[in-house]
Amino acid sequence: MNRPSIKEVAKKAGVSISTVSRVLNNSAPVSEELRKKVEAAVKELGYYPSNIAKSLRKGKTKTIGFILPDITNPFFADIVRGAEDFLRKKGYTLILCNSDQNGEQEIQLLETLISKHIDGLLFTGTGSFNLLLEEKIRKGLKVVFLDRIIQGINSSYVIVDNKKGMELLLDFLIKSGHKSFIFINGNKETFSAKIRYEVFVEKMEKAKLEYKHYFTNFSYEAGYNFAKKIRKLPHAIVCGNDLIAYGVIDAIEEKGYRVPDDVSVTGFDDILFSKHFKPPLTTIRQPKYKMGMKAAELLIKIIEENKFLNRGIILEPELIIRKSTKELKK
Amino acid sequence: MNRPSIKEVAKKAGVSISTVSRVLNNSAPVSEELRKKVEAAVKELGYYPSNIAKSLRKGKTKTIGFILPDITNPFFADIVRGAEDFLRKKGYTLILCNSDQNGEQEIQLLETLISKHIDGLLFTGTGSFNLLLEEKIRKGLKVVFLDRIIQGINSSYVIVDNKKGMELLLDFLIKSGHKSFIFINGNKETFSAKIRYEVFVEKMEKAKLEYKHYFTNFSYEAGYNFAKKIRKLPHAIVCGNDLIAYGVIDAIEEKGYRVPDDVSVTGFDDILFSKHFKPPLTTIRQPKYKMGMKAAELLIKIIEENKFLNRGIILEPELIIRKSTKELKK
Repeated sequence: MNRPSIKEVAKKAGVSISTVSRVLNNSAPVSEELRKKVEAAVKELGYYPSNIAKSLRKGKTKTIGFILPDITNPFFADIVRGAEDFLRKKGYTLILCNSDQNGEQEIQLLETLISKHIDGLLFTGTGSFNLLLEEKIRKGLKVVFLDRIIQGINSSYVIVDNKKGMELLLDFLIKSGHKSFIFINGNKETFSAKIRYEVFVEKMEKAKLEYKHYFTNFSYEAGYNFAKKIRKLPHAIVCGNDLIAYGVIDAIEEKGYRVPDDVSVTGFDDILFSKHFKPPLTTIRQPKYKMGMKAAELLIKIIEENKFLNRGIILEPELIIRKSTKELKK
Repeated sequence: MNRPSIKEVAKKAGVSISTVSRVLNNSAPVSEELRKKVEAAVKELGYYPSNIAKSLRKGKTKTIGFILPDITNPFFADIVRGAEDFLRKKGYTLILCNSDQNGEQEIQLLETLISKHIDGLLFTGTGSFNLLLEEKIRKGLKVVFLDRIIQGINSSYVIVDNKKGMELLLDFLIKSGHKSFIFINGNKETFSAKIRYEVFVEKMEKAKLEYKHYFTNFSYEAGYNFAKKIRKLPHAIVCGNDLIAYGVIDAIEEKGYRVPDDVSVTGFDDILFSKHFKPPLTTIRQPKYKMGMKAAELLIKIIEENKFLNRGIILEPELIIRKSTKELKK
């Protein structure tokens, strides 16, 4: 927008730019007469004081940023709702940015949010590192990591117990007779995909089962494209999240197979639609709304008590058994 | 975050605040010596120049805001993707805010975004008016309305032909023998709900069919709660969007009825999951990604050509026939 500049305000008020700045920032005494002139000009021109002026006065902008990796994944929408409901009650406004699982974009968004003066940041990263974020945290940016932590960065976080979630799922599949597995996992660089990979391999090796593992990315398309290329179906296809599972099921069915008759398929997250999917999806439920709420609560605590807390909150996952998996004959 | 203040920069550099401001804003000549001192202090403290300083130099912040009504509705996620893909190519960053279908919250978000210095705004409103937005548009804020326009506000917009969408849907249902209807519509105050209501009543009256119409809101819960209370099923339940239809189908099935055997149910939007819903949903497809892309394109045109264009783009809807509706005996 064509925002009136501070220069125009100064001209209109017949004062210097420094005077306008002093009035807006309360940074130095100004005579009542000059103050009135400036305020009249500000009002007439519809000039908005910059947020830094407000920050200087109040020390706070009451704005929280949230960088998330994929706006089209309903998993994050539920997290946002949880965070927002908490923040609103506390008088904070949440502004969201979508990195679209792109590391460069993530840096750009981080720079934009910081330049807009946020009091703190909720962050679900797309890769295994972010040097700019590391630097900003060292310089005092208050951050709570959500769903995914970045190893090597010291910060507070709220995640779900991915190890336990994966164990619940695999124990269930193994117990119901599945002996061969393909794991179509999400992005290699993400914390959650790594943990789930480790648990998977450990379980497979321990039970001496046949298995393959692939990193793709956390999307419907990744699942669809990958499953199109599978030649020989295993007993179970384990997917890195529900969206991958949706894509896998579609591709498998287009090839003329049926789920779960020909192959069991599982997800991870339990997004709203998984209950209604055809077939309804067996998956691990993450407490998404609670995750958002807890992260917002922790961030506000850090901001308002002005402490550099390093606290990790780990929430419990839950196994949800539906119709995309079946009991195999032993 | 504990951002270093301009005062601290001034102290560190051993100069006045006005001098720091002059250097950062390029608003008045400063000696090379002082400039160097200020720049060194800025660097050492990690001070970020406020966006208004950047605006003053460049006239633009290269940031676009988007206020949307419901982050949990995947309909908007697709629109965001379309807008973002276009904006990114043009070097703009998109920041999102979720009004959660709350008018007060919408005003708060608008104030926040304007105070953060956006170059323009994409706006999907939650009500039938927004006085603050009207004022801001008069004062030069560049806005493109998306999906929903607000009557009485002169601005550019990108919408889908709601009238045609509703006609396609009702003509199909009437032709396939449905003679009694309940329309569970979205929020009374929204443009799209109003248009769809008008078309519905007109069609029903013209064909002399039995009908009832109710405004609720565009959510799963609204559909679920409303359908729980329906005593006598009509031939068809027409829903204001796909989420309402999901809720309706769940409630109907919990009451022991089957869709479409006992009642046909239709949606509006065709979000990703509707193809996979059980039963797959008959609905009207809106070109969501294209809507976002076109709106971003129009907004950037308005910003870069600095014109106050009032242009409306109306996109075509498409009838998608799936398994939640059936052919009735005539």
